[in-house]
Amino acid sequence: MSCLIPGFHGVKEALSQNRIKIRKILIAEGKSSGRTEEILRLAEKGRIPVVFMKRTEMETLLPNLVHQGIAALPEEFAYTELPAMAELSTGSEGNGLLLAADHITDEGNLGALMRTALFFGADGFIVPKDRAAGIGLGTIKRSSGAQLHLPVSRVVNMGRTLDFLKDKGFWIIGAAEDGPVPLYDFDWNRNLVLVLGNEQNGLSQPVLKRCHQVVNIPSKGKMASLNVSVAGGVILSEILRQRLSR
Amino acid sequence: MSCLIPGFHGVKEALSQNRIKIRKILIAEGKSSGRTEEILRLAEKGRIPVVFMKRTEMETLLPNLVHQGIAALPEEFAYTELPAMAELSTGSEGNGLLLAADHITDEGNLGALMRTALFFGADGFIVPKDRAAGIGLGTIKRSSGAQLHLPVSRVVNMGRTLDFLKDKGFWIIGAAEDGPVPLYDFDWNRNLVLVLGNEQNGLSQPVLKRCHQVVNIPSKGKMASLNVSVAGGVILSEILRQRLSR
Repeated sequence: MSCLIPGFHGVKEALSQNRIKIRKILIAEGKSSGRTEEILRLAEKGRIPVVFMKRTEMETLLPNLVHQGIAALPEEFAYTELPAMAELSTGSEGNGLLLAADHITDEGNLGALMRTALFFGADGFIVPKDRAAGIGLGTIKRSSGAQLHLPVSRVVNMGRTLDFLKDKGFWIIGAAEDGPVPLYDFDWNRNLVLVLGNEQNGLSQPVLKRCHQVVNIPSKGKMASLNVSVAGGVILSEILRQRLSR
Repeated sequence: MSCLIPGFHGVKEALSQNRIKIRKILIAEGKSSGRTEEILRLAEKGRIPVVFMKRTEMETLLPNLVHQGIAALPEEFAYTELPAMAELSTGSEGNGLLLAADHITDEGNLGALMRTALFFGADGFIVPKDRAAGIGLGTIKRSSGAQLHLPVSRVVNMGRTLDFLKDKGFWIIGAAEDGPVPLYDFDWNRNLVLVLGNEQNGLSQPVLKRCHQVVNIPSKGKMASLNVSVAGGVILSEILRQRLSR
């Protein structure tokens, strides 16, 4: 099951069956036709909320899809199993790269980070199941549809997840304001999981305990911290820089 | 005049005078006392909107200020004159750094970029007067109060502004997806203005024409572009990396 079901036909199909529960229908403003009416009737019957949005907003949500100004958001996002993701990433020659979000609570931040991860070629993205943002409308919107291409795993226990990946040969690298090593001084040429912390509290103890190394982003100014998607972009860019110049 | 006026006393003063027009009063939710009542009365009398927000949101807006859960947003932000900003930046030894936002339309993006600019030690920030986001509540919120420390100039004509800065010895460096030089291959050790483009259209022709160089951010993935604040962070980080290792 893909993340968003685009187009009249797909949405109608989705509304007419019972296997996948639909959370919301998205329709571009100014859209009205016999077919739209039909969708609206089906949505009302199924008590499914309809969200009208600007066409330009919709384009950013569904950048590569023919969607005819209409899409359905299914209840469940198709997450990837962790072992499959690990397999996928370590298949490459010591340049595996997974990103883990340690309890990021804001959907917009999570989405922006996913977009950034996909831009810099991360193989997969790991989010915790509890006390964290999931794949909601806010995530999808800010991610520019990154979930359509980026495998996402949702895990019950981040500590045990990192142990599993460690066993598979991944280095666990955290990022924190008070990390001992500037990110530029670390050798990123190895299979690794980059772990980024929560907006307020940074990395949790169970994560810190498992990190082989914790890096910081050197700053020069009066602002103490970066937005998590910007921090992610800065580190992922350095990883790619080192790997390209290898 | 500072950007936000914090605290009961300051807000009361602001509401009681006529020199500075107040746009909004911000009050932390759950806040109620005789003093709050007084402010609410004054705001109602002056027909000034009151916005209630979560205390945690307010903290991010006013990170370094004692604000007692209340603040006033004045109508006019105190912009810095361009010549003063140029003077300030070229004072340093060939490591002047200004950021120019070429018609960024989203206040949140602008705010996030300002926060990023301050983190990496930019000397100033330039925004166009028309067809662009200004210093509004959305900017302030996402900037974590960066405007309190980062000089901001608002200019009528970006092309002429860049000409002026060029005359002052600044290199004009643009960033664009199709820029010819990977950002890592450029020598950032010089006084420079980094120009970032609009979310949709990138750099405008008048800006492109004036660039000494246009850099790209190498990517490795299916996502074509980055959020503008992430792109800014990636480039500013590389600038700081090169300058620190000089």
